[in-house]
Amino acid sequence: MTVLAVDIGGTKFAAAAVAPDGEMLARAEVPLRGPESAGRTLSEVVRRITERVAPGRLDGIGIGSAGPLDPRRGTVSPVNIPAWRDFPLVDALGETLPGRPVRLAGDAQCMALGEWWRGLTDGDPAARSRAMLGMVVSTGVGGGFVLDGVPYVGPTGNAGHIGHITVDPGGDPCPCGGVGCVETVASGPGMVRWAAANGWTGADARALAADARVGHPTAVRAFRRAAGALATAVLTASALFDLDHVVIGGGVAAAGPILFDPLRQAIERDAGLGFLRRLRVDPTSLGRDAGLFGAAALVLLQDSL
Amino acid sequence: MTVLAVDIGGTKFAAAAVAPDGEMLARAEVPLRGPESAGRTLSEVVRRITERVAPGRLDGIGIGSAGPLDPRRGTVSPVNIPAWRDFPLVDALGETLPGRPVRLAGDAQCMALGEWWRGLTDGDPAARSRAMLGMVVSTGVGGGFVLDGVPYVGPTGNAGHIGHITVDPGGDPCPCGGVGCVETVASGPGMVRWAAANGWTGADARALAADARVGHPTAVRAFRRAAGALATAVLTASALFDLDHVVIGGGVAAAGPILFDPLRQAIERDAGLGFLRRLRVDPTSLGRDAGLFGAAALVLLQDSL
Repeated sequence: MTVLAVDIGGTKFAAAAVAPDGEMLARAEVPLRGPESAGRTLSEVVRRITERVAPGRLDGIGIGSAGPLDPRRGTVSPVNIPAWRDFPLVDALGETLPGRPVRLAGDAQCMALGEWWRGLTDGDPAARSRAMLGMVVSTGVGGGFVLDGVPYVGPTGNAGHIGHITVDPGGDPCPCGGVGCVETVASGPGMVRWAAANGWTGADARALAADARVGHPTAVRAFRRAAGALATAVLTASALFDLDHVVIGGGVAAAGPILFDPLRQAIERDAGLGFLRRLRVDPTSLGRDAGLFGAAALVLLQDSL
Repeated sequence: MTVLAVDIGGTKFAAAAVAPDGEMLARAEVPLRGPESAGRTLSEVVRRITERVAPGRLDGIGIGSAGPLDPRRGTVSPVNIPAWRDFPLVDALGETLPGRPVRLAGDAQCMALGEWWRGLTDGDPAARSRAMLGMVVSTGVGGGFVLDGVPYVGPTGNAGHIGHITVDPGGDPCPCGGVGCVETVASGPGMVRWAAANGWTGADARALAADARVGHPTAVRAFRRAAGALATAVLTASALFDLDHVVIGGGVAAAGPILFDPLRQAIERDAGLGFLRRLRVDPTSLGRDAGLFGAAALVLLQDSL
């Protein structure tokens, strides 16, 4: 069984054909050009796969999508794609490959499942996490849990919203309606907003990371502040889920040691209870492919999920 | 199959014989008299059940215990029972009824499972929660999750430690090693400590609740502050687990509307994301029996767990 994996992001769509052993037979990526182009972009990215892997060889479709989404109804409403509100993505892709199973989960949930399946412990099932959190720290902050090898998506499919837990009750209001959410502090825009309010004059999170790497004090503090919020979030999730492994990807996480060093220090400092101290925290080992592997795994591993 | 259910608390032990339909055939409770008496108290509370329900009729043993505990090894180390450190409770009770299955989980995990099985939706499996949190708010704050009818205990058995998630990063240090944990704010001793520091002169949490009920401003604020911390904790768990129901028991929760009114108001105010807004929050409907029902359910429902 080879699977069509589709990753619906806020700024680009990606797709791949993935074999049961995890080999990626074909891969394509198409940027979204304007808010009305989502339908065309979806057709285009799928066509680039089926040009190279005949549709007759594709036995299922796995989809990871930016949220919110409703896996029961198969619909998605990605925040950055206003043209898609309750868009029937499962039906739309099902028409492309009629009769095949189609499965849908959140993008961060797929990232977590991809890391669990093909990530750091690839090839050694015994070394795999029993309770894992995958996080995407980027323009937003998302998460997904894999418990004993099964993605935990919750009754409505919305489990893993770690970007919207409060880590600073006296903090900024969040567009979600909450206050002091992780996303207000540790997302790229959240970090840039704080740095700008403290006198930094750069353009974006990438520039902030570059400045932090050469020791710009405000930029360094912005990353330490984000790392502190992420540490609280990671320890919170660990206390509730008894996690053994956290894998973090996304643009902000790609900044590397300027984020991970203070993050690990904060976790080391604040992890009190004994069972929290076994937690490993790693950057993604699959980069942007984690979500595609996870989308494929939704179908490929479904008998064991 | 009738089960011996045992509830190991910090100040008393309880036991019951529970039939498969949930009927409690016998129930006993024995207070702990001094730190060295745990072994005698255990024998005594079990004897009071086996006097009334013949040991030959008891086909299994379910145990809920104050933590920390290690369900894999069957050992417990309750904070308030210093004489028991890595005490082999599963073996000790297994010798009482040789050859029967013995299962062990945390006290709050059993409280949650008991509420799921025999609580508000008793008799109507269709109305049961798909993702439930049970909390015990008392001298400490504990929790347990039941996901699709299965207790989620995590790889080391420690899932559900909601009392030790940080809700106030600038708050008091917690004996666990963390900072601003729910327990520092919302436990009975935490509330009393704060009220005393703000001029209140009563004796304990019970007196604080009595004063809050008659409108003593500092007592009212202490309950509002605890409710705020619990609201943050409940919303955090809901964002991560996609919860539909939270049930709260324990001595502090027994204070009633002076806690639940501000708690529900804070949740209503801060629940931004759509899926959080379906959450129901209720006081326990089983009182102190929830833990015994849950301990029994560990064995009675084990085929479906």
